[in-house]
Amino acid sequence: MSLSPDILAQLDAQAIEVPSWAYGNSGTRFRVFGTPGTPRTPFEKVSDAAQVNKLTALAPTVALHIPWDRVDNFADLRKHAEDEGIRLGTINSNTFQDEAYKLGSLTHSDPAVRQKAIDHHFECIDVMNATGVTDLKIWLADGTNYPGQADIRSRQDRLAESLATIYERLGDDHRMLLEYKFFEPAFYHTDVPDWGTSYAHTSALGEKAQVVLDTGHHAPGTNIEFIVAQLLRLGKLGAFDFNSRFYADDDLIVGAADPYQLFRIMYEVIRGGALDPESGVAFVLDQCHNIEEKIPGQIRSVITVQEMTARALLVDRTALTIAQEAGDVLGANQIFIDAFYTDVRPDLAAWRERRGLPADPIAAYTASGYQEKINAERAGGTQASWGA
Amino acid sequence: MSLSPDILAQLDAQAIEVPSWAYGNSGTRFRVFGTPGTPRTPFEKVSDAAQVNKLTALAPTVALHIPWDRVDNFADLRKHAEDEGIRLGTINSNTFQDEAYKLGSLTHSDPAVRQKAIDHHFECIDVMNATGVTDLKIWLADGTNYPGQADIRSRQDRLAESLATIYERLGDDHRMLLEYKFFEPAFYHTDVPDWGTSYAHTSALGEKAQVVLDTGHHAPGTNIEFIVAQLLRLGKLGAFDFNSRFYADDDLIVGAADPYQLFRIMYEVIRGGALDPESGVAFVLDQCHNIEEKIPGQIRSVITVQEMTARALLVDRTALTIAQEAGDVLGANQIFIDAFYTDVRPDLAAWRERRGLPADPIAAYTASGYQEKINAERAGGTQASWGA
Amino acid sequence: MSLSPDILAQLDAQAIEVPSWAYGNSGTRFRVFGTPGTPRTPFEKVSDAAQVNKLTALAPTVALHIPWDRVDNFADLRKHAEDEGIRLGTINSNTFQDEAYKLGSLTHSDPAVRQKAIDHHFECIDVMNATGVTDLKIWLADGTNYPGQADIRSRQDRLAESLATIYERLGDDHRMLLEYKFFEPAFYHTDVPDWGTSYAHTSALGEKAQVVLDTGHHAPGTNIEFIVAQLLRLGKLGAFDFNSRFYADDDLIVGAADPYQLFRIMYEVIRGGALDPESGVAFVLDQCHNIEEKIPGQIRSVITVQEMTARALLVDRTALTIAQEAGDVLGANQIFIDAFYTDVRPDLAAWRERRGLPADPIAAYTASGYQEKINAERAGGTQASWGA
Amino acid sequence: MSLSPDILAQLDAQAIEVPSWAYGNSGTRFRVFGTPGTPRTPFEKVSDAAQVNKLTALAPTVALHIPWDRVDNFADLRKHAEDEGIRLGTINSNTFQDEAYKLGSLTHSDPAVRQKAIDHHFECIDVMNATGVTDLKIWLADGTNYPGQADIRSRQDRLAESLATIYERLGDDHRMLLEYKFFEPAFYHTDVPDWGTSYAHTSALGEKAQVVLDTGHHAPGTNIEFIVAQLLRLGKLGAFDFNSRFYADDDLIVGAADPYQLFRIMYEVIRGGALDPESGVAFVLDQCHNIEEKIPGQIRSVITVQEMTARALLVDRTALTIAQEAGDVLGANQIFIDAFYTDVRPDLAAWRERRGLPADPIAAYTASGYQEKINAERAGGTQASWGA
Repeated sequence: MSLSPDILAQLDAQAIEVPSWAYGNSGTRFRVFGTPGTPRTPFEKVSDAAQVNKLTALAPTVALHIPWDRVDNFADLRKHAEDEGIRLGTINSNTFQDEAYKLGSLTHSDPAVRQKAIDHHFECIDVMNATGVTDLKIWLADGTNYPGQADIRSRQDRLAESLATIYERLGDDHRMLLEYKFFEPAFYHTDVPDWGTSYAHTSALGEKAQVVLDTGHHAPGTNIEFIVAQLLRLGKLGAFDFNSRFYADDDLIVGAADPYQLFRIMYEVIRGGALDPESGVAFVLDQCHNIEEKIPGQIRSVITVQEMTARALLVDRTALTIAQEAGDVLGANQIFIDAFYTDVRPDLAAWRERRGLPADPIAAYTASGYQEKINAERAGGTQASWGA
Repeated sequence: MSLSPDILAQLDAQAIEVPSWAYGNSGTRFRVFGTPGTPRTPFEKVSDAAQVNKLTALAPTVALHIPWDRVDNFADLRKHAEDEGIRLGTINSNTFQDEAYKLGSLTHSDPAVRQKAIDHHFECIDVMNATGVTDLKIWLADGTNYPGQADIRSRQDRLAESLATIYERLGDDHRMLLEYKFFEPAFYHTDVPDWGTSYAHTSALGEKAQVVLDTGHHAPGTNIEFIVAQLLRLGKLGAFDFNSRFYADDDLIVGAADPYQLFRIMYEVIRGGALDPESGVAFVLDQCHNIEEKIPGQIRSVITVQEMTARALLVDRTALTIAQEAGDVLGANQIFIDAFYTDVRPDLAAWRERRGLPADPIAAYTASGYQEKINAERAGGTQASWGA
Repeated sequence: MSLSPDILAQLDAQAIEVPSWAYGNSGTRFRVFGTPGTPRTPFEKVSDAAQVNKLTALAPTVALHIPWDRVDNFADLRKHAEDEGIRLGTINSNTFQDEAYKLGSLTHSDPAVRQKAIDHHFECIDVMNATGVTDLKIWLADGTNYPGQADIRSRQDRLAESLATIYERLGDDHRMLLEYKFFEPAFYHTDVPDWGTSYAHTSALGEKAQVVLDTGHHAPGTNIEFIVAQLLRLGKLGAFDFNSRFYADDDLIVGAADPYQLFRIMYEVIRGGALDPESGVAFVLDQCHNIEEKIPGQIRSVITVQEMTARALLVDRTALTIAQEAGDVLGANQIFIDAFYTDVRPDLAAWRERRGLPADPIAAYTASGYQEKINAERAGGTQASWGA
Repeated sequence: MSLSPDILAQLDAQAIEVPSWAYGNSGTRFRVFGTPGTPRTPFEKVSDAAQVNKLTALAPTVALHIPWDRVDNFADLRKHAEDEGIRLGTINSNTFQDEAYKLGSLTHSDPAVRQKAIDHHFECIDVMNATGVTDLKIWLADGTNYPGQADIRSRQDRLAESLATIYERLGDDHRMLLEYKFFEPAFYHTDVPDWGTSYAHTSALGEKAQVVLDTGHHAPGTNIEFIVAQLLRLGKLGAFDFNSRFYADDDLIVGAADPYQLFRIMYEVIRGGALDPESGVAFVLDQCHNIEEKIPGQIRSVITVQEMTARALLVDRTALTIAQEAGDVLGANQIFIDAFYTDVRPDLAAWRERRGLPADPIAAYTASGYQEKINAERAGGTQASWGA
């Protein structure tokens, strides 16, 4: 099998957003290791993000995180991105690093803390207006570490109220994307722990509220592609956060832990119509490059998503449906996995070359001298990380 | 702390339904061990179930499973139950043992199989009408073992359609209770794997459809009491299936694996108003006594639920709220767990004695001679099990 | 990359044992579905197993399970296998289906039960002597369902004693292979739950005792290839039981759940020298074909193991070592996964054709008429399953 | 049941070591929240640790972590501890925070990095000699994040060699305690991931090497008390690190997540003779008080271990053995759990009062004014945390 013109056309339209924080340092509670060339400012992060798109044509936008990416003038940052050939993307709020949020933010029992967290989201909406971005992504660290520490039910009620207040402030073309996460940093209960909770809240809020599925935010053994299929069926899948994990929320490179799972997810994306840019489903990386090189790590990630999309597009759906309806368990599975086992890398290298891109983007990055340049240029200052 | 009159009044109203199948044999795929005295007929199962209530006054109803408990005349079975001092309870459907359901039932791609499964539910509704039972519980084994084996999305659509057809047939006072389960017997995907899926379907169906939470049907690490709180908040918790597990759906005696988890669940039940019989939330055992004695196992189970309810009622909610709102993490947790550590067993023994019940129901059962009697009487015939 | 002569030579030597029970019916506690053509006798099972080897040249031996495969004259069964072109393989004991073993076998507190279980292993050794088989595989279902049910420590001591008694009886060229399993059918504790326990016992027993690694018998998230590497380093890996799982011990077709994991396992096999037939490491399937066709399921399985072995052999170990020692995290991982993504299927089809085998063994099986023949011939009698 | 003189005598001898780092700040990768009064120096940590012992008589020693607790003169620190009424305890090495250890320490492919890590352990042994401490605890963060990143097998070989070099340097009365951990901070493979690996290495090293069991370092569903029983049987359990977890290595207060599990662990401790101070098994807390008060959190922890020990001592082992050997599954489990459900808190409050300790140590701490004092005194400087 090789990639048909129809498949290539679908791949032409694919876009994967990269996160500004992937270019800064990250780590575990045990240690954050630094790396040469790490950006010190949002402008430098945007420049790094742009390298990914230059070499792959897959990553036209970069997600921002407030306050990590707060700048004096967002119009300048927007212009900088455009000069680099990309656009600013999703605005991510942050209510987990201020001292006030130690015991919660939008769910906190103290109305003053809730208002502070709501105001932060208003600021994010202001940034959206200043940058022309339409997606506001909310991931909450809210939760508790000990049974009895707080009242689970009241926190849900307060969450609903806080979200409704933020929702009211959204512009006509804005979306609120509510992410769920199984655990961490809270270790007993999390206020938005599963897709059901995010679905219940976003359903109550209205059409502009949608669910975010982060592939690393599930209990062991969870069938993620089922959730993809279900949320698409319910019309509530707003965005993906892509990464991979063996244990918890490891935030490794997408596809690095279980490539076949990524294939199955992409198959349900296609099956549910979400590869169509009109679907409104956003595909975003959310990863940490704790020990590996950051820009090459991002390049690898977008290429992997593209490769797996191509494999999933290769599934012979007509034959598959026939086998499925005949109850041919082995035959249907064989058709399905045959597409996964097909090597699409040469075809995609050719796709890149036809577009004037390097066949091997990582080799091209290495050869470009960009890394050496930033290693030299970014000598002083404070390297960006989750904390700043 | 001892149990106040107010707490005792709430305990007076508590009722826990026992399942007819707990009195038959059960086991694993490796072996079903038989035991002396195992019932051969639904009538004998009902008699055994009645022993639990006689000794504890906690188990006034017994759930039936169709076709395992199919009888020629359900009025006779109903009268037999009433003669034994109990009533018939929830009707459970079964679409996992007929050859036709090998690849699905309400979700099957073949309309004839779906109709057969729908018809089975119509039969269950007929049984409800014949017995005066109002709850229809649906647990589906539907799912697949291999990726690609079937189309996940189409199965959801067919499930919605099948459920709607059954829902239409419900009587005015009937309820449809839709259970979810993480995995087993399907090993790749399950059509109703989580509370979110059951919630989405029951919400679409209407007010007579509710979710069933089986405490053994979750991924490792799932915070079950959160789901309890959430479903009560959403008005969609119809019933519990109680049991306990260390690994998968072990179906052990409730509270046997993690008694503190049961305490936390009962706390959210109370917090959410579901201990009130008017709430409509049903408390049902769903257990397998693979190697232990069955009737004593059931007695132990209902007593454990009662004990844990009493402990949860002992939580000083006023003090707890003060500590929670003060952000006193340790203090709030201490108030909470102090109730769990309180020994309520003597007070509950006294509660039983005041009602003319034995202080130690298991000792009383042993002394009653009932087991010896059934061991002797039930010599021939085929012992009931999941298969018959 | 294509398969070099050196790689092909290694593949030539590969042998995967198939289990007699895979050709009988299996299922879950909820239901065992039957299939047309299922064998009724060990002779018929051996005939079915032989089909796999005829079409793939990968499966020259078939494992037996006592008492399921007990025959009056094992010399006859041996001759039957040889007539079919294969040999009898590992003898598997069974101490989980007799009523006596309800609470344990080699670990039971009653010496009479332990002796019965020991005697059963003596019978297995007799079968080994009668059939020329050298491997005795012991998987124990022993464990408990409830805390306090039995004394964990005493059971270990009795296990050690029972195993030593059996070990004494082994012939000079015999091996005892001790399998471990995380859970099931016991739900609280299992007497041989992890590789550490099997390692401690087999180390104490001596050189003829080795560990069996069943790929489905681990806790969620366990890094199985690490255990492979560790056991090979310690000289204690005796055999693999291959299958795959999403949740518990699902016993699905090997590679069906996580093909990349199988690749990583095969890489450590090669890295540790265990692909060499002289290593003594046995590769055995242990699967259940609950809903799919059995013989094609087995064919698929051995081909998948071969394909994944070929991919693992493609890893450029020289380049990998250079990247590893340079600390090039991404580069090393890329070299590793590049081999996985290489499509070896055409080369292996050619390998088969060169050996006079069908390029597509499953299509050849379908075309052979064998299934229709057994469907017709095996009309009466009792289909083999785990129970018989 | 109340606590007999024999049980009280055993409790009199119980000692639980507290970790110096529990008094410093800790957190997650998302945020480390500070608290008033947090120590700035090892001397202040020791003073805080001493409060726990003053109020409970349960915590006579404090574990140190090098380099976090490096001081100019360890004799001064030792004297300070003695002045505060406690002693210095286990020396913990740290090879995870230096830039050199980014890709490993004792397992690193670069001999210079390994030597640096070995030298660090030599320094720890020097500290042991300077302080009179006999236990060296090694927890390694070594591992990899991506398949292929490093050679798993070579790392085991290098680990064995590095450990042997350190072992050589141990004094006659020294012990090396090797901790294992399922995952984190490495996300693909960990070099000492399970008890089997720690057992294999410590067995090869010799009698002075033992295994450390951290209760939070296992895969989901692992039966920890089995490992306790097994390691005691093998004579290789050197120490516990106590804490509790719902998901990963949450490092919550011991007993906070699953008190019944702690009970079962303490039962196996007693069963295996490890409560006897002569057994050499050390009981150490290893917790993080991310959001709760630190000194009260530690007080609570040691009291919980004492309470659970008392409950486990209440198990009627004679009756239990009779029920176990009779195959009375329910009866044995009832005897076991009855001890857990017994409220020992009043008896232990009386035990404290008889020893001149406060009945309620946490209330006494609050009343003592110590927290207000340190809040005021420790105004400047840098609060201690994992990083310093």
